[in-house]
Amino acid sequence: METFRISDFELYDVVLYGDEEEKNELLANQVFVQGWVRTNRDNGQIGFIEFNDGTYFKNVQLVYSKDSKDYGILTSLRNGCAIEVEGKLKLTPEMKQPFEIEVLAAKLVGECAEDYPLQKKRHSFEFLRDIAHIRPRANTFQAVFRVRSVLSYAVHQFFQERGFIYVHTPEITTNDGEGAGNVFDVTTHDTKDPFEFYGRKVNLTVTGQLHVEPFALSFRDVYTFGPVFRAEHSNTVRHASEFWMIEPEMAFCDLNDNMEVIEDCIKFCISYVMEACPEEMKFFNTMIDNTLIDRLNHVVNSDFQKMTYTEGIEILQNAVKSGVKFENNDIKWGMDLQSEHERYLTEKVVNGPLFLIDYPEEIKAFYMKLNPDKKTVAACDLLVPAVGELVGGSQREENYELLKAKMDKLGLTEGLEWYLDTRKYGGCVHSGFGIGFDRLLMYVTGMQNIRDVQPYPRTSNNIKY
Amino acid sequence: METFRISDFELYDVVLYGDEEEKNELLANQVFVQGWVRTNRDNGQIGFIEFNDGTYFKNVQLVYSKDSKDYGILTSLRNGCAIEVEGKLKLTPEMKQPFEIEVLAAKLVGECAEDYPLQKKRHSFEFLRDIAHIRPRANTFQAVFRVRSVLSYAVHQFFQERGFIYVHTPEITTNDGEGAGNVFDVTTHDTKDPFEFYGRKVNLTVTGQLHVEPFALSFRDVYTFGPVFRAEHSNTVRHASEFWMIEPEMAFCDLNDNMEVIEDCIKFCISYVMEACPEEMKFFNTMIDNTLIDRLNHVVNSDFQKMTYTEGIEILQNAVKSGVKFENNDIKWGMDLQSEHERYLTEKVVNGPLFLIDYPEEIKAFYMKLNPDKKTVAACDLLVPAVGELVGGSQREENYELLKAKMDKLGLTEGLEWYLDTRKYGGCVHSGFGIGFDRLLMYVTGMQNIRDVQPYPRTSNNIKY
Repeated sequence: METFRISDFELYDVVLYGDEEEKNELLANQVFVQGWVRTNRDNGQIGFIEFNDGTYFKNVQLVYSKDSKDYGILTSLRNGCAIEVEGKLKLTPEMKQPFEIEVLAAKLVGECAEDYPLQKKRHSFEFLRDIAHIRPRANTFQAVFRVRSVLSYAVHQFFQERGFIYVHTPEITTNDGEGAGNVFDVTTHDTKDPFEFYGRKVNLTVTGQLHVEPFALSFRDVYTFGPVFRAEHSNTVRHASEFWMIEPEMAFCDLNDNMEVIEDCIKFCISYVMEACPEEMKFFNTMIDNTLIDRLNHVVNSDFQKMTYTEGIEILQNAVKSGVKFENNDIKWGMDLQSEHERYLTEKVVNGPLFLIDYPEEIKAFYMKLNPDKKTVAACDLLVPAVGELVGGSQREENYELLKAKMDKLGLTEGLEWYLDTRKYGGCVHSGFGIGFDRLLMYVTGMQNIRDVQPYPRTSNNIKY
Repeated sequence: METFRISDFELYDVVLYGDEEEKNELLANQVFVQGWVRTNRDNGQIGFIEFNDGTYFKNVQLVYSKDSKDYGILTSLRNGCAIEVEGKLKLTPEMKQPFEIEVLAAKLVGECAEDYPLQKKRHSFEFLRDIAHIRPRANTFQAVFRVRSVLSYAVHQFFQERGFIYVHTPEITTNDGEGAGNVFDVTTHDTKDPFEFYGRKVNLTVTGQLHVEPFALSFRDVYTFGPVFRAEHSNTVRHASEFWMIEPEMAFCDLNDNMEVIEDCIKFCISYVMEACPEEMKFFNTMIDNTLIDRLNHVVNSDFQKMTYTEGIEILQNAVKSGVKFENNDIKWGMDLQSEHERYLTEKVVNGPLFLIDYPEEIKAFYMKLNPDKKTVAACDLLVPAVGELVGGSQREENYELLKAKMDKLGLTEGLEWYLDTRKYGGCVHSGFGIGFDRLLMYVTGMQNIRDVQPYPRTSNNIKY
């Protein structure tokens, strides 16, 4: 008889999807598993350990009896400790779990102190946030962080399979991207001088877009996917001071092409996660938001609609006239829409994903292309039910004179001459978009607080880990 | 007749690998291409444009004659300008290039100013470094940055297909990882106070390892892949102040298992790039280092050797005795090996990749597992010919008392109590390693300066972009 070292994932894979030969081979031999005790109960005759090695969402049930060779060890195992077990696989098609492992020998390889903070009872997310180094072992966070990993990979697959070049844009930079002023400075230890190391004042990046555009004008289709930073004290459930952004940029691509890629990308990522993480998605739908899977399926099967900002404003004004109440009922052309307005348009008016396009120039970033009306820019925000804005994109201003005049007016030209150069040397129609990865993850999992989808969230006054 | 919008990559793909039907369809119709003029020469009768849209390493040849409808436009096109061309595909099996496009109509869509810095002549890497926003259009950097993207994806594929969970460890942190003291502080705009935003002093991370270990003790196999920072003024060809690190971490994994994963990972990544980027690799082998492909093939086909540090020291001491001259000939047990020593072992002694293991405790990081000899730790550095160290890994100290005593002695405990916790709550044997991604890319491409493999390199006193 042989003993096979095997993971939880492989066990479930063979039992649920393996052929008879594979199954019989495992059943005829012994298995060796290594992982952690989730819970352990023992009625004096027979004991059950909910075991998990982190490779699969569901636990594996280990069964032992008072006659087991290592009963003394087994009965005293505390929640959280690390064990190694040899045992026999038994199929249990009549039970809740499809199989269990009858323990033949067990070894405690990592004791767990009595004050282990993760006990069987349900813990609040607030409590778990305070033990960021332990919470990945809790069900919700096993699901969140596995989906985070799978969703990241989906992003790379989507772009790489379409020939996009992944560009690592820099984190330390001399510009503050969109000019909003909420940047972190970078200084060298002790001197506190942001000029010292590089000879110029430097800060953490707020966007990779400016640095990725020159690559689009060399490789056509490119993307960046990395951390960005905002020193905002906004203490909301959707703001963190460090988060990951996906920023594709495409040459010879106008606003309509851009929206096609956004739609394909969002649909691909959602479908990918639903297929790769069915257990996790079922869990979120049951425990976090029971409209989640319906909502995601609806998005995948929708044709995303388009509406101009100007049409949106008219619809909102008419809604107010006909009695709809917003927190802000003073709907005027030129205003920045609030989340409540965006949600009204996507939920009540079109009941599905909606691109709002052609925003007033004044409320959008300097690099967006001025439309022929000279009042609006070729921007597209993707609004989705239950959330509001999920993606922001635009066609970029490729006209050197127009862009320079705007940058001069805003005082942005100095230090960004190289960015302007891209319009002088073979610049062409190009577009791109940005997706806040953490917000996309919230959208896909139904999690409501950005602090619960980041491994170690960084928010104002909060950096224990 | 139809007109197909098509990329350079698709053109080469159909002509070289497509079936007859696909080829004939293209030949019977017209193609529409969008991209940039690399060079344009015209003898008054017939003109040739070396055209590239960034999707494939090789150019596409556009041919026009003085009778062409848009001859006036075509003949005046400057290097670097963006054009759109309709034409007929012609196979040219007897020529250097397998096909060309006979231009039917052309449009200049992005003018290129006369002072375009990228001219036909060969430019030095130093010169190109100074135009980081333009150099991605040069052959060498088309090759470098495409391989950078493909190599990144290879890393993700390797780990994701083996069930590893990708963890986005934080960039802003309160610890300085290995305690080397060369960190960048992070402050808020104007206040210059690294305490202000988070209520604690914060800096940019030097490693994701400490933050990823708790995830290995939850998910078993995990990895992080993201930017790290070092405020070192080292002005060498291998040091940058910002670079990307790959840091896998595995529970229930000892030093030997660790070395197996390292060997598999390096072989997978090299093979992947050689298969996915044959034209680029041929270019590097011709233009940068004509031993490159042989060297990489040798690595892929080697069994990586193992040697203890102590054996290595003895071999080096004997080499000095028998007349080998190093810059530093004072070989003593306990010393940090220099690159010249590492290269001697990997090139002269084993002639292939070599794991040097079991280093003196004093010269390695605090978290490495103390061996039974109480003098060495379970570390493994992978040394490779032509470079020296490529990967550094170790088994981690899982014993709470030993680790705490060491951290206390080094003054590292305060603020890292959570890290120690992982040894209290179900800690187990675990190991991991780190690969400097930019150095791996240098190794795979043969490029000699880290400034030439990063999109916008950050080094001391250098941050123009």
